[in-house]
Amino acid sequence: METTNPDAGTQLTIARSGVISGQAEAVAADEGIAAENVREALAAGRIVIPANHHHANLKPVGIGEGLTVKVNVNLGRSQTESCLTEEVDKVDIAIRHGADAVMDLSTGPDLDEIRQAVLDACPIPVGTVPIYQALSEVDDVIDLSVDDFLDVVRRQAEQGVDFMTLHAGILKAHLGLTADRFTGIVSRGGALMARWMEHHDRENPYFEYFDRVLDIAKEHDVTLSLGDGLRPGCLHDASDAAQFAELGTLGDLTQRAWDGGVQVMIEGPGHVPFNQITDNVRRQKEVCHGAPFYVLGPLVTDIAPGYDHITGAIGATVAAVAGADFLCYVTPKEHLGLPDADDVREGLIAFKIAAHAADVARGLPGAQDRDDEMARARYDFDWNRQFDLALDPDRARQYHDETLPESRYRESHYCSMCGPKFCPMKVTRELQGKGVEDRC
Amino acid sequence: METTNPDAGTQLTIARSGVISGQAEAVAADEGIAAENVREALAAGRIVIPANHHHANLKPVGIGEGLTVKVNVNLGRSQTESCLTEEVDKVDIAIRHGADAVMDLSTGPDLDEIRQAVLDACPIPVGTVPIYQALSEVDDVIDLSVDDFLDVVRRQAEQGVDFMTLHAGILKAHLGLTADRFTGIVSRGGALMARWMEHHDRENPYFEYFDRVLDIAKEHDVTLSLGDGLRPGCLHDASDAAQFAELGTLGDLTQRAWDGGVQVMIEGPGHVPFNQITDNVRRQKEVCHGAPFYVLGPLVTDIAPGYDHITGAIGATVAAVAGADFLCYVTPKEHLGLPDADDVREGLIAFKIAAHAADVARGLPGAQDRDDEMARARYDFDWNRQFDLALDPDRARQYHDETLPESRYRESHYCSMCGPKFCPMKVTRELQGKGVEDRC
Repeated sequence: METTNPDAGTQLTIARSGVISGQAEAVAADEGIAAENVREALAAGRIVIPANHHHANLKPVGIGEGLTVKVNVNLGRSQTESCLTEEVDKVDIAIRHGADAVMDLSTGPDLDEIRQAVLDACPIPVGTVPIYQALSEVDDVIDLSVDDFLDVVRRQAEQGVDFMTLHAGILKAHLGLTADRFTGIVSRGGALMARWMEHHDRENPYFEYFDRVLDIAKEHDVTLSLGDGLRPGCLHDASDAAQFAELGTLGDLTQRAWDGGVQVMIEGPGHVPFNQITDNVRRQKEVCHGAPFYVLGPLVTDIAPGYDHITGAIGATVAAVAGADFLCYVTPKEHLGLPDADDVREGLIAFKIAAHAADVARGLPGAQDRDDEMARARYDFDWNRQFDLALDPDRARQYHDETLPESRYRESHYCSMCGPKFCPMKVTRELQGKGVEDRC
Repeated sequence: METTNPDAGTQLTIARSGVISGQAEAVAADEGIAAENVREALAAGRIVIPANHHHANLKPVGIGEGLTVKVNVNLGRSQTESCLTEEVDKVDIAIRHGADAVMDLSTGPDLDEIRQAVLDACPIPVGTVPIYQALSEVDDVIDLSVDDFLDVVRRQAEQGVDFMTLHAGILKAHLGLTADRFTGIVSRGGALMARWMEHHDRENPYFEYFDRVLDIAKEHDVTLSLGDGLRPGCLHDASDAAQFAELGTLGDLTQRAWDGGVQVMIEGPGHVPFNQITDNVRRQKEVCHGAPFYVLGPLVTDIAPGYDHITGAIGATVAAVAGADFLCYVTPKEHLGLPDADDVREGLIAFKIAAHAADVARGLPGAQDRDDEMARARYDFDWNRQFDLALDPDRARQYHDETLPESRYRESHYCSMCGPKFCPMKVTRELQGKGVEDRC
């Protein structure tokens, strides 16, 4: 393992010192904004650049204020399913289709090996939930010691993980607040922390020993992604006392992380009715002092298993328009099983749509350029250009060619949806005296 | 053809006379609201019940204020694709998956025969765009006489079509307003009307002879769906002068339809950035005096061909939350080709999600009941109940069984997503002392 930048400090401390890091420079160039603006927002904690010193070949990605909305892809085998090569295939698909980050959520055996393969394959930030590995090494979460909880964070930090979900905000005092919920605790990490706390009658070790967490995170520049262990698991449980009590603790921890020189973002729900999403985002931004907000979905209905990439993309768009910075994708298999490679693609594109639609709605400079190019390509009947501009060119080409497979149709001034006589753009072009000569 | 109710008048005139029609009664029962409330909103034009006197076996559907959001499925062969049996298959799929209405947009030969087959197969309202048939009977739209435009409306009304899209609001004076657009006119009907007007240097015949249209519509109780021939075809063209000029005319025509005792709804865009959708809906409601709003999408980005059911479902949810009443689905094949049966299913479920999420967000009484039942079924690990409650039970079952096919897994307290050791709900149930015994 190579320590690429041992004395660099974190992106947060570097920015605070007034220096524009190479990573901040790269992010600014990528986003087409001034590097000094990135540095300022980094220093204030409103942008994070998850970039572990040990993640070789990382192309840095910025998340937060004034930047395009980013999308994370969750990967990883469960205890019952998948294998290493399958997971690396999913990484390839995620990167090919434009993921901005991946989280390896594997919970079976061989976790170090799988994680190394993912890190090696990934030029984008890699995240984990360390408690999954801690639990994989014992029979029951109650067997874990405080040192076990911290040791796994250290090992993963040394390996090069760029951001880690730690459920440090779920406290003993919060657990009773879930009594009236329909679905209790639906966060894996949250439920495991709850079980540990109840059994040992002790406080959450990531909360109690947060300073030790911060020391590790600062040393390697791991960005903390403070998990919402009490996120709602259904519409009924959304925006309840349990969720907001934990959020309050996350706000306090945000300030402590910043005081410790550690980058931090906050995770959010989950399952939330459409009309509550904007308020949820505004509350997070206020309570957590402007730290980047990383949402899972949120899903706007519970009745669409098999299509939760769509219910999630709807909620994610609203959330991102309201200010969420980072979207964790949801696949069509959510609530039903482990996603395969096709599910990864479907879920990722759905959330790329959400992120992009929000960039346009937020008026981010240049966000609509690609839409405008697509519009012009459509009006010109330039099918190949349309495919190139599509979020998923292969899918667009495939669907077009299903009904009109011969290559001459790539030149035609219509498609099979309307046919030539009824094509409105063909008719409009004629009205405008523009070329409509058809080679079919 | 049987005239089931020859002297009944329209749902509008009946309601105005103070009578609660059988259709209004049925809609009220379906929606769980007072029949008098339905009658009042019908009388005021804020609800329509498309129910042609000649559509036998129609189960009436209400669209508008205070009712659940409805979803329409477009079907119909194009000149290049599909056949009758294929279209009837699509009708079956649409009805099985919960479509509230279908539009037969066929443009090839045998239109009367296809339409009759669709009407016979449909217990839900059937809509058409009559100009498609008019054009199918000549070589070029400019060959149509004014009587041709009206005659096809009469023939379809006599056959039993419940609602018809007429592009009566696109006027000669509006056409110049499209000059700066990137994609000109993208409505098939709108482009055809424009060509006819330009060639003959005459006003839109559906506008000029709107009283004759109203006479036909009133006689058979055809609900007019006033088309937005100048709807934007890309984000760039949204909310422009052309779109809103036509909307103004549609507002005038709404009043004329009501004065003539004819039910009317208004069609809307199209392609609209997320942040403009709510204003679009509010403007329509104001300009068109509260007439029901029937939106196509709207699509919140142009760069996702192959996934426009998702871009459309995102926009449709926002529109419906803001007050749109009726959603025209978009399939994954939009912009690429004619949808097949699978595309119909994908598009319909995406828009059922949008409609339902909006019902929940609008606080419609009871709208969240099914979500709450799903939440309880999830927490109880009652997989079969989850499948039954799903918008698409077959899909949910199929996805679940892909990784855990044996029937005993329908009894298990986990799925392949997390596996038993990591299942948060299993852990939470244990904390609550609830049963978690596993039969696997």
